[in-house]
Amino acid sequence: MAKRPLILVTNDDGITAPGIRTLIEVMNSIGDVIVVAPDSPQSGMGHAITINSTLFVEEIKIDEGKQREYSCSGTPADCVKLAINEIFDRKPDLCVSGINHGSNSSINVIYSGTMSAAIEAGIEGIPAIGFSLLDYNWNANFKATKSFVKTIAENVLKEGLPKGVVLNVNLPNLPKKDIKGIKVCRQAKANWEEEFDKRKNPQGREYYWLTGKFVNLDKGEDTDEWALKNGYVSVVPIQFDLTAHHCIQNLNTWKLNG
Amino acid sequence: MAKRPLILVTNDDGITAPGIRTLIEVMNSIGDVIVVAPDSPQSGMGHAITINSTLFVEEIKIDEGKQREYSCSGTPADCVKLAINEIFDRKPDLCVSGINHGSNSSINVIYSGTMSAAIEAGIEGIPAIGFSLLDYNWNANFKATKSFVKTIAENVLKEGLPKGVVLNVNLPNLPKKDIKGIKVCRQAKANWEEEFDKRKNPQGREYYWLTGKFVNLDKGEDTDEWALKNGYVSVVPIQFDLTAHHCIQNLNTWKLNG
Repeated sequence: MAKRPLILVTNDDGITAPGIRTLIEVMNSIGDVIVVAPDSPQSGMGHAITINSTLFVEEIKIDEGKQREYSCSGTPADCVKLAINEIFDRKPDLCVSGINHGSNSSINVIYSGTMSAAIEAGIEGIPAIGFSLLDYNWNANFKATKSFVKTIAENVLKEGLPKGVVLNVNLPNLPKKDIKGIKVCRQAKANWEEEFDKRKNPQGREYYWLTGKFVNLDKGEDTDEWALKNGYVSVVPIQFDLTAHHCIQNLNTWKLNG
Repeated sequence: MAKRPLILVTNDDGITAPGIRTLIEVMNSIGDVIVVAPDSPQSGMGHAITINSTLFVEEIKIDEGKQREYSCSGTPADCVKLAINEIFDRKPDLCVSGINHGSNSSINVIYSGTMSAAIEAGIEGIPAIGFSLLDYNWNANFKATKSFVKTIAENVLKEGLPKGVVLNVNLPNLPKKDIKGIKVCRQAKANWEEEFDKRKNPQGREYYWLTGKFVNLDKGEDTDEWALKNGYVSVVPIQFDLTAHHCIQNLNTWKLNG
């Protein structure tokens, strides 16, 4: 790519989160950056979009970086739609989302606002990557992520991504010297064993808090869970054609039409 | 199945929507029904879950059917998690979601609260189906859907579904006599061309409404879009392992580790 790439940066933890500030810093070293990100945390929003309410967008200045920035009242997917249709003059060369405070590996990809932004960009035909660090703390240390984020983004800009595919990148919460490298993986089969914490409010009405325990059901050594547990950065190519092609033949043997 | 199946019914349009009332009626003819559905419309919520807020659940009585019903303050995915963990004594034999007022075919599956409930049940190992009628109106006519919904649900109860697969069923908005049958399909490649309707609020601040035009980019005759356009009920098996397995080999040729 001869000219500087145009890069859209977004996230789901909100525009002031340390994770997105790190991502902006790295992207400023690669290309021209425009940030369009939620004005408040949107974790667990999945691929929500705002269809029954209005969207506000405001240009703001948060730090001394050379990026342009817009804060948006919507979800991560809304931010990408608005960016592409109302803010960018041309299609961006890359969309990066994150760096999320907390894992989006394995089944978490389904609930992830970070990944929904990347998927939304992918649907629009833009090469896209979601980045997440395995540390839920607001004050997580993103220092070790920088060189990996840069390498992966530069590879995507150079090689492109196949149509219909975006990358889900998770980074272990380790000092840089302890990270063994970058590994291409498949999504581990895993789920959450939910636990609901049942309480009573001051008026005596019962309510619940959703909590739970993540359970990896997958013994494979080619999964993102294995890679992260063993000190690697995991890269999973994911697709938004959800068709289970391997089932179609079997379903055609059913008596669906009498 | 010797004993009557235990069926969880949910949706994303809210527990009082005509679509879910139709679904409950059909399921009452097949098994023992417990409804756990949002207390307000949740369209476009994707796979959102409620992690930063409390959840309220209330047993209610809406009509004269023999089902038990619970109204929940959360998203469709929350409803399924709560149902399984707090309301059901044993794992349901089937989870059905819908009938959605409006299409969830092709790329719409990504944004769909209806399908997120079915996917959530699938993650928990419960055979699950999302149903949608191609009519966005609250007063849509669900009469023609009943026999197809029943046939598909009974087939799933009889045959089971492979692990990791749920069904996305869409029904054309046609009188029964004009529906040609049920067709197993793949998800059409399609997207939305967004249009943002930009306005000014009474205080002079700009805001947007998200609108758009659905564009089918897929000429295949084995897609859900083709089936629906040609008078068939579409059944797409979908999976929540999002790994683009066909890309892994290619990504392994990249220079990710220097």
